[in-house]
Amino acid sequence: MQVSFTPAEIIALVQPSQTRGATEATIRGIGALSTAGAGEISFLGNAKYRAEVGACRASIILLPPDFEGEPQPGQLYLLVEQPSVALARICARIEQQLWPRPAPGIHPTAVIDASATVDPAATVGPLCIVEAGAIIGAGSHLQAQVFVGRNARVGANCWLMPSVVVGTECILADRVRLHPGVVVGSDGFGYEFVQGRHEKVPQVGIVEIGDDVEIGANSTLDRARFSRTVVGEGTKIDNLVQVAHNVIIGRHCILCAQVGISGSTTLEDYVVLGGQAGVAGHLTLGRGVKSGGAAAITSSVAAGTFVNGAPARAYMLERRLQVLFGRLPELFKRVAELEAQIKLSSA
Amino acid sequence: MQVSFTPAEIIALVQPSQTRGATEATIRGIGALSTAGAGEISFLGNAKYRAEVGACRASIILLPPDFEGEPQPGQLYLLVEQPSVALARICARIEQQLWPRPAPGIHPTAVIDASATVDPAATVGPLCIVEAGAIIGAGSHLQAQVFVGRNARVGANCWLMPSVVVGTECILADRVRLHPGVVVGSDGFGYEFVQGRHEKVPQVGIVEIGDDVEIGANSTLDRARFSRTVVGEGTKIDNLVQVAHNVIIGRHCILCAQVGISGSTTLEDYVVLGGQAGVAGHLTLGRGVKSGGAAAITSSVAAGTFVNGAPARAYMLERRLQVLFGRLPELFKRVAELEAQIKLSSA
Amino acid sequence: MQVSFTPAEIIALVQPSQTRGATEATIRGIGALSTAGAGEISFLGNAKYRAEVGACRASIILLPPDFEGEPQPGQLYLLVEQPSVALARICARIEQQLWPRPAPGIHPTAVIDASATVDPAATVGPLCIVEAGAIIGAGSHLQAQVFVGRNARVGANCWLMPSVVVGTECILADRVRLHPGVVVGSDGFGYEFVQGRHEKVPQVGIVEIGDDVEIGANSTLDRARFSRTVVGEGTKIDNLVQVAHNVIIGRHCILCAQVGISGSTTLEDYVVLGGQAGVAGHLTLGRGVKSGGAAAITSSVAAGTFVNGAPARAYMLERRLQVLFGRLPELFKRVAELEAQIKLSSA
Repeated sequence: MQVSFTPAEIIALVQPSQTRGATEATIRGIGALSTAGAGEISFLGNAKYRAEVGACRASIILLPPDFEGEPQPGQLYLLVEQPSVALARICARIEQQLWPRPAPGIHPTAVIDASATVDPAATVGPLCIVEAGAIIGAGSHLQAQVFVGRNARVGANCWLMPSVVVGTECILADRVRLHPGVVVGSDGFGYEFVQGRHEKVPQVGIVEIGDDVEIGANSTLDRARFSRTVVGEGTKIDNLVQVAHNVIIGRHCILCAQVGISGSTTLEDYVVLGGQAGVAGHLTLGRGVKSGGAAAITSSVAAGTFVNGAPARAYMLERRLQVLFGRLPELFKRVAELEAQIKLSSA
Repeated sequence: MQVSFTPAEIIALVQPSQTRGATEATIRGIGALSTAGAGEISFLGNAKYRAEVGACRASIILLPPDFEGEPQPGQLYLLVEQPSVALARICARIEQQLWPRPAPGIHPTAVIDASATVDPAATVGPLCIVEAGAIIGAGSHLQAQVFVGRNARVGANCWLMPSVVVGTECILADRVRLHPGVVVGSDGFGYEFVQGRHEKVPQVGIVEIGDDVEIGANSTLDRARFSRTVVGEGTKIDNLVQVAHNVIIGRHCILCAQVGISGSTTLEDYVVLGGQAGVAGHLTLGRGVKSGGAAAITSSVAAGTFVNGAPARAYMLERRLQVLFGRLPELFKRVAELEAQIKLSSA
Repeated sequence: MQVSFTPAEIIALVQPSQTRGATEATIRGIGALSTAGAGEISFLGNAKYRAEVGACRASIILLPPDFEGEPQPGQLYLLVEQPSVALARICARIEQQLWPRPAPGIHPTAVIDASATVDPAATVGPLCIVEAGAIIGAGSHLQAQVFVGRNARVGANCWLMPSVVVGTECILADRVRLHPGVVVGSDGFGYEFVQGRHEKVPQVGIVEIGDDVEIGANSTLDRARFSRTVVGEGTKIDNLVQVAHNVIIGRHCILCAQVGISGSTTLEDYVVLGGQAGVAGHLTLGRGVKSGGAAAITSSVAAGTFVNGAPARAYMLERRLQVLFGRLPELFKRVAELEAQIKLSSA
C-alpha cells in the first residue's frame, strides 16, 4: 500500500483534542502497538493493551483523552475521543487512494446488449457482460469480468467486483457491494422424487438485495422457487456464505464466513450468526438472535436469544452442559464408587 | 419475473378435474397461501396449511381433489391430483420465458481453439474459452465467461452458466447443469511430506460427471490422483460443496449445500447428505444412507442407515443421547444426592 | 487422459532394482490393485493391500524390494524402493503432457494496462486483466480470465488458473499456484455498530503469499484491516477455505477443505487442520498443532497438541468423552438402580 502522510496531514484528519511530543517522520504504514515501527502510526483501540504504549516505536500513536504518559523523543501522541474511529478516518483516506473512483463509461471489451440500460454515470469495466433488458444505475461500478443477466436491475452506487454473477431478473438496490465471485440468483435446490429420480422443481423467483448490503467473496444466494429470496437493508454477509431459496434476511444482520441458511428460513432484523453456523429450513430466528460459531440451529429461536452448540441451545445452558460433558470421566467414577459402597453395605 | 397468464391458459396447463368459482384476473405472480394477493396464483401443497385456504386472497388456488369449501367472489379454485406438480408445470412454463433457449452459434468474443469441436447445434456465449481438443455437444449452452480446458468433453444439452470452469480432460455426459462458479477438475489435495516440506503428488486423473447431474454455484470437484472422480447419473449437488479426489458418488444422490466429501470415499446410490455434513476419507456410505445437517461422518455406514451428530451415530441413538446430554445437570445432582445419602447411612 | 508408455519407458522412469516377468502391453492408464486391468500400471503403496497383488490384472505392478511372489504370464513386476514415489514420478511425466508449459507471451484478448509490467518470459492467457502498476514475474502463467488488480505483484513461475482474482496491492512470491476461482484480497469483514447500523471499517491492508504456496479452488483470503494477512512459504490450502483479515499462517501448514480461520488468528509453522475445522479469532495455534475434521477451536492451543471435537479438546480426552457420551443411557440406568436400592435400604 503506497501510503504517505505528513504529521500535519494526520492531525488535520483526526482533529486531536491534544498533542504531546513531535515527529518529522512521514507516515508510510499502520501497525499494532507491538509491531509498529518508525514511520508508522499506531493506536490504542482496547484498554487492555495500555501497557504496550510506552514501548511502542511508532512515530505517531492515537490515544484516548485520559491517557497518561509522555512520548519518546521523535514520537507524537495524538489524544482523540475514539482512537479506533480516528484510525478508521485515516484508513478511509487510504481506501480512496487504493480504489480511486473510476471514470464513468463502458470499457470497449465489455459486452452490452443493445436493450440494456447503463446510466451515463456508471462504469462498466473490461470483459463485463450486461444482458438484454438489464439496468445499471448511476455511479455503479462493474469492475471487471462481471455478469449481469437478463432484466436484472443494479441500483445506484453499487460496486460489483471481478467475477460477480447477478442472475436473470435479480434486483440490487443502492450502494450494494459484492466481492469477487459472489453469485446472486443461482437456482434454489428443489426436486421432487418421482419414480426413483429427482425431478427438478423450476426455480422462477428472484433474489432482491436491499440498500447498503455487502456480500463477501464467493458467497452464493439462490433465487426463490417463486417470489423472492430477500436480503434486507444494511445486512453484511461474509465470504463463502450460502443463502438458500426463499430465505428472508432482515435488516442489519451479520452473517460471518461459511454460514449456511436453509430454504424458507426467516431471519428478523439484527440477527448475528457466527462463522460456520448452520440454520435448518423453515425456521424463524427472532429479532436480535445471536449464535456462536459452528452452531447448528435446528429449531426456531425467540427474539434476543443467544444460542450455541450443535444442536444449538441457549448459550449459558450449552456452556454449562459442555462443562459437565468434560466432567463425565469423574461422574462415571463416582457412580462406580457408589455402586461399590451399596454392594458393600448390602453384603 | 414478467409473468402473464389468463385463467384459461392456467386451466389448459394444469388440466383440473374440477373448477369452482371464476376469475377474470390476469395472473402475474405466484405466492404462498398466506401472502398471495389478487392477480396471483397459490396452491395447497401441504395438508397442514389447509386452514389457510379460506382466507387466501389469490385469484386462483390449486387444491387437491378432496378439498371442501367454496371460493370467494372473483376467485377460482382448480382441483388437481397433485397441486405441487401442477404448480411445477406452471413454473416450467415461466422458466422457458426466463431462460429462453438460445440460438445456436458462437459469440464473436468467445475464444475457441482451432482444434476444438463445437457442435453446430451448441451455443457458446460471450467471453467463453474452449481450449484445444475440447468437444462441445449438440444443444449444449456455454452461457458466458465459461472455461473448458484442453480435451475436455461436454455432452449434449448441457448448460454451463457464467464463470464455470471445466478442467483439462474432464468429461460431462448429457443434460448436465453447472451453476455459476462451479469448478470441475481442480487438483486433488495430495502431498508427500519430504524433509520438512510438502511435495506435491501430481493429480493426473479426471472428473467424470454422469447424465442429468446438476451442481450448485461455486461447488468444487477435484480431479483424481489418477483414474477418475465420479458423480453418478441423476445426482444433485447444491452450492459450495466440496468433492475431493477419487470420490465416487453413485446415482441419484442428494448433497445439500456446503457438504464436504474427503478423498477416496464412495457414496452408493440414493445417498442424501444434509447441509454442512462432512464425510472423512476412504469410507463407504451404503445405498440410501441419509445424514442430518452438520453430521460428521467418521466411519463407513451400512446401506439404509440414517445418521446424525458429530461424530455421526445412528439417528435415533444420537437423538436419545442429545436428550440425555441436556439432562446432565439433573444427573450430576442426582449423583450428589446419592453420595449424601450413602454418607448419611454409613455415618 | 491420453497416456501412452512402453514398458521400457516405465523402466527408464522408475529405475527398478529388480524386474520379474515381462509384458508387451502399452500402458494407457493407472489403477488401484483391485481395479486395474491389462494395459494399466498399478502399485503397492500400503502394506495392508499386499494380499491383493496376486489377483491384480495390471500389466505392470510397482512393488517394494522385499515383495515375494511371481507375476502372472504377460505381467511385469518392478521392484522399487518406494512404489508410491515411483508412481509419482510417472504421474509427474503425465502432468507435463496434460499441462504443457505454455509459450511466453500475451494473448491478444487480454487487457493489460500500459503501466503494468509483464515479464517477457511470462504467459498471459485469453481474457485476463492486468491493471495499472501490476507486475507479473518471469515464467508465471495467468491461464485464462484471471484478474490481477492495481499494483499487485505476482512473482516468478506462479500459475494462476481460470477465474482467479488477485486484488489491489496484494503480493504473491514465487511458484505460487492458485486454483480456479481463488480470491486473494477481498475486504476483511469489519464493521463498527453505530446508531443501529454497521459502518464499514475500511480494509486497506494486503494479502502476502509466500513461495511454493498452493491454494485450492474457490478459497478466499481477505486483505488485512491494515498491514498484512500472511500465508507462509510452503503452506498448502485446499478448496473453499476461508482466511480472514490479519490472519498469519506460518510455513508448511496444511488446511484441508472448507476450513475457516477467523480474524487476527496466528497459525505457527506446520499446523494441520482437518476438513471443515473452524478457528475463532485472535487465537494462536502453536507449531505443529493438528486438528481433526470439523473441530471447532475456541481457544489458543499449545505447540504440538492434537485437538478434536466441538468445542475442541485434546484428542485423547475428546475421544474418551465421546465414548462416555455414548454410554449415557447406561449411566442413567445405573443411577436409577442406585436410587431404587437406596430407597429400598432406607425403607
